Amino acid sequence: MTKMRVAVIGAGPSGLAALRAFQSARAKGAEIPEVVCFEKQGDWGGLWNYTWRTGLDEYGEPVHCSMYRYLWTNGPKEGLEFADYSFEEHFGKQIASYPPRAVMFDYIEGRVKKAGVRDWIRFRHPVRFTRYDEATGKFTVTAHDLVKDSIYDEVFDHVIVASGHFSTPNVPEYPGFGIFGGRVLHAHDFRDAMEFKGKDLLILGSSYSAEDIGSQCWKYGAKSITVAYRNAPMGFDWPENWKEVPALDHVDETTAYFKDGTSKKVDAIILCTGYKHHFPFLPDDLRLKTANRLATHDLYKGVVYVHNPKLFYLGMQDQWFTFNMFDAQAWWVRDAIMGRIALPTDKQVMLKDVADREAGEDAGQDAHDAIHYQADYVKELVAETDYPSFNVDGACEAFFEWKEHKKKDIMGFRNHAYRSVMTGTMAPVHHTPWKDALEDSMEAYLRN
Amino acid sequence: MTKMRVAVIGAGPSGLAALRAFQSARAKGAEIPEVVCFEKQGDWGGLWNYTWRTGLDEYGEPVHCSMYRYLWTNGPKEGLEFADYSFEEHFGKQIASYPPRAVMFDYIEGRVKKAGVRDWIRFRHPVRFTRYDEATGKFTVTAHDLVKDSIYDEVFDHVIVASGHFSTPNVPEYPGFGIFGGRVLHAHDFRDAMEFKGKDLLILGSSYSAEDIGSQCWKYGAKSITVAYRNAPMGFDWPENWKEVPALDHVDETTAYFKDGTSKKVDAIILCTGYKHHFPFLPDDLRLKTANRLATHDLYKGVVYVHNPKLFYLGMQDQWFTFNMFDAQAWWVRDAIMGRIALPTDKQVMLKDVADREAGEDAGQDAHDAIHYQADYVKELVAETDYPSFNVDGACEAFFEWKEHKKKDIMGFRNHAYRSVMTGTMAPVHHTPWKDALEDSMEAYLRN
Ligand SMILES: Cc1cc2nc3c(=O)[nH]c(=O)nc-3n(C[C@H](O)[C@H](O)[C@H](O)COP(=O)(O)OP(=O)(O)OC[C@H]3O[C@@H](n4cnc5c(N)ncnc54)[C@H](O)[C@@H]3O)c2cc1C
Ligand SMILES: Cc1cc2nc3c(=O)[nH]c(=O)nc-3n(C[C@H](O)[C@H](O)[C@H](O)COP(=O)(O)OP(=O)(O)OC[C@H]3O[C@@H](n4cnc5c(N)ncnc54)[C@H](O)[C@@H]3O)c2cc1C
Ligand SMILES: NC(=O)c1ccc[n+]([C@@H]2O[C@H](COP(=O)([O-])OP(=O)(O)OC[C@H]3O[C@@H](n4cnc5c(N)ncnc54)[C@H](OP(=O)(O)O)[C@@H]3O)[C@@H](O)[C@H]2O)c1
Ligand SMILES: NC(=O)c1ccc[n+]([C@@H]2O[C@H](COP(=O)([O-])OP(=O)(O)OC[C@H]3O[C@@H](n4cnc5c(N)ncnc54)[C@H](OP(=O)(O)O)[C@@H]3O)[C@@H](O)[C@H]2O)c1
Repeated sequence: MTKMRVAVIGAGPSGLAALRAFQSARAKGAEIPEVVCFEKQGDWGGLWNYTWRTGLDEYGEPVHCSMYRYLWTNGPKEGLEFADYSFEEHFGKQIASYPPRAVMFDYIEGRVKKAGVRDWIRFRHPVRFTRYDEATGKFTVTAHDLVKDSIYDEVFDHVIVASGHFSTPNVPEYPGFGIFGGRVLHAHDFRDAMEFKGKDLLILGSSYSAEDIGSQCWKYGAKSITVAYRNAPMGFDWPENWKEVPALDHVDETTAYFKDGTSKKVDAIILCTGYKHHFPFLPDDLRLKTANRLATHDLYKGVVYVHNPKLFYLGMQDQWFTFNMFDAQAWWVRDAIMGRIALPTDKQVMLKDVADREAGEDAGQDAHDAIHYQADYVKELVAETDYPSFNVDGACEAFFEWKEHKKKDIMGFRNHAYRSVMTGTMAPVHHTPWKDALEDSMEAYLRN
Repeated sequence: MTKMRVAVIGAGPSGLAALRAFQSARAKGAEIPEVVCFEKQGDWGGLWNYTWRTGLDEYGEPVHCSMYRYLWTNGPKEGLEFADYSFEEHFGKQIASYPPRAVMFDYIEGRVKKAGVRDWIRFRHPVRFTRYDEATGKFTVTAHDLVKDSIYDEVFDHVIVASGHFSTPNVPEYPGFGIFGGRVLHAHDFRDAMEFKGKDLLILGSSYSAEDIGSQCWKYGAKSITVAYRNAPMGFDWPENWKEVPALDHVDETTAYFKDGTSKKVDAIILCTGYKHHFPFLPDDLRLKTANRLATHDLYKGVVYVHNPKLFYLGMQDQWFTFNMFDAQAWWVRDAIMGRIALPTDKQVMLKDVADREAGEDAGQDAHDAIHYQADYVKELVAETDYPSFNVDGACEAFFEWKEHKKKDIMGFRNHAYRSVMTGTMAPVHHTPWKDALEDSMEAYLRN
């Protein structure tokens, strides 16, 4: 019998979790399938692989990166820590709780370097298309080797889609965008806050990107921030040059007009209007269609595609938990593929699981419930594999404290520190308040 | 026998020329194949279909448009006029020689509206992949109906690729782009010159985009324009706040440093560094690989793919002639498909044709030779079909005059007028010098 073959699409945190899951089984003596990871970028890390580029990259591919130059994590690192690779193991000491992007990239990379899985990845290999053949029961993956400029097919027993869902922007149009004289951009294309120094900015949206991009621009000297919300304001205690206003109605050459009849002259408009699940490389019978929510549509246990259980998705949920949730999913998927976990043979059972999860999420009232809901999901998966179990409720506590800290001081919450549920140690308070830490290199951050 | 089926990929000027070519044969009584045109945008016109969007569009597709808000044609309209549909026929009068984008779009649309081919086009249908099956001798085109979010296959006897090659940007990286504080963008993402009012701009490249985007920004009030050339300066008699400097070496947070040791503080960097032929929807055996030149690689007669002569490409050449050259090609391809023109059965004959064309182009010394070379190509194709023959040499004269007018006054060349080789009438001189015509709507332009 030829060896089972598994394709992983994407080498971001989710795809890397899959590689690490298989590698850790092998390290414990198991025989594992052949794993091939296709990654369209030139390096691993997914969204955390920063580039100044926007739009299309040097090969004409859509730039994956949605991150920006001065991005720091927006939640405490204590909520996302890998259970099998702590921050202390990686950095040789405990570090402060809201690391900048470069520090996070280093941490993500540290684990997979140690695991030695880099040569499982084919970089600069976007997957162009995937088909499932009922007759053979196998998938054909069509990949483009960009460096050789050659497109080829390969056959796999399983496909794990880990291509992320915070990269393809949701870009609404408002009347007048075509004649507005300044730049109109989506958060996905936001890179350097310095571009907006001294500017009057309009931001649309009232979620994490609106909050954080606005805060960046405020930190680096924007003249004013006006955030227009569609449903509800974020309601933080904003600095004095920051206003929340009702939804945008239209713009003209220079000015934005809001639904309450007020207006504001602005220099640029940043659309922090979210992202789309986007899988142009999957046919109808394999393509996930879901809203951005905690209980995704059509995924049994949040990972098995109910319409073809040989196909798996990782990280497709909206996210409170990130890295350790991707791990929990990846270990579970590995075990399903390796036959350690049996999948229901009755599709109705899987559909019922999805419906129950959706109902469970919908029963929640607020962010507190949502955090608990996702924590329970992580616990459920972790319990079914050999992923190191950890104090998920403790991680929730970090999230609840974080929410309080934001409520008290939105420009100061990153000056707090939390306790690791992996190692039990308390993080140091960062040496410089976030708002004054204009230099955010790894060297600068680790000086604690 | 079932009817022959032809797929056209793209409804820009080239794809529309193909539709019009078939429709005109039908109008003369011929039986024509079934023609299906797949267009990824929501409207026809290709690059001329303007949008304020950049990067990815509302469906997550790469935005095709490389044009910008105040774009006027950069060559005289007398060089591109359709031989079967004059400007006078469309506008009911002769119009000035350098129409703004909106006027050109109206003209392009006019002919195909009259031809009644809109319902041959499936809008919002990007082609995802195409395969050729040796056994059946047919192509399978995989298209994505974005509105229904459904991907499906259809089988065709021929495919005509008319997807353009000035849309996927060539984006080089220079040291320091990652830390430069201002915006770094490619010409493809340039939209509104007002964004750069009062700014010090650096432009890379020394071709049409560099010249025209620089000129736009100058016209709408940029503070200074610095153009860095890699090989040779454009050498026009530039305004006093415009400088040409040697190639860029690197940038830091605020400043660009050039190879000659000079430097300049700049606010934004616009990469006018050209485009790539990019066909992510074609496998190796069907994918054209060519430099941007007048004699493309691997295309017999500039249109037949030598490695599979059932596959055709339109408009893949670098362009002096545009619309009427696309027409000449489209009529020729139509006749090849309809069996009115016989293709060589010996591949060597086709390869020799390609080699001869390349040698012919390489023998030219300058732009003058290049214009004649492409004129000869247009004449050659027109002579072999029923496309209305026209005075191609007369069109060349318009190009030569244009070049002289640019040399004399780079900010004033658009104030000149030329004679139509289709109708013999002289264009009026535009009522306002280009540099003062800040309002460039169709209404404003046609007031002559
Ligand atoms: C602006 C922003 C800030 C964020 N900040 C935080 C934070 O502070 N903390 C946190 O925990 N999370 C944060 N996130 C959430 C983020 O989703 C996760 O941290 C994580 O990156 C998700 O990992 P992923 O592997 O699922 O997806 P991604 O990181 O998106 O990786 C997907 C990978 O798939 C590749 N890919 C895509 N298509 C193809 C294809 N066709 N073929 C081959 N490869 C392909 C991509 O190139 C990419 O490498 C942030 C997200 C955004 C947008
Ligand atoms: C900035 C700029 C200015 C220009 N100015 C002039 C000018 O003044 N005068 C002039 O004569 N020429 C000008 N040109 C040249 C231009 O190339 C032609 O005028 C003309 O647009 C080329 O027509 P086309 O149909 O070959 O390609 P395009 O106009 O590029 O059209 C290609 C079409 O294919 C579609 N498409 C692409 N991929 C797919 C897919 N996978 N599936 C389905 N559809 C797809 C696109 O959406 C598009 O509609 C300019 C070009 C640029 C970039
Ligand atoms: N580490 C960091 O610092 C950081 C920074 C940014 C983002 N992130 C992460 O990135 C992910 C995505 O966050 P996000 O904020 O980009 O997306 P998001 O959470 O999905 O929020 C999208 C926002 O856009 C609004 N919106 C959508 N369509 C709109 C329209 N047509 N007009 C006006 N508003 C519209 C929504 O409004 P309604 O609320 O009215 O529906 C919502 O507020 C999250 O996981 C987040 O944690 C992290
Ligand atoms: N209607 C209009 O007003 C208008 C406006 C703009 C463009 N256009 C059309 O658009 C088409 C494309 O024109 P274009 O100017 O974008 O492309 P182009 O003619 O291909 O020119 C590309 C330029 O980029 C330079 N370049 C490439 N790589 C570079 C690098 N790594 N570093 C520095 N420079 C680099 C080239 O330099 P070298 O010369 O050194 O090789 C060249 O000058 C043309 O058909 C043009 O007519 C029309």
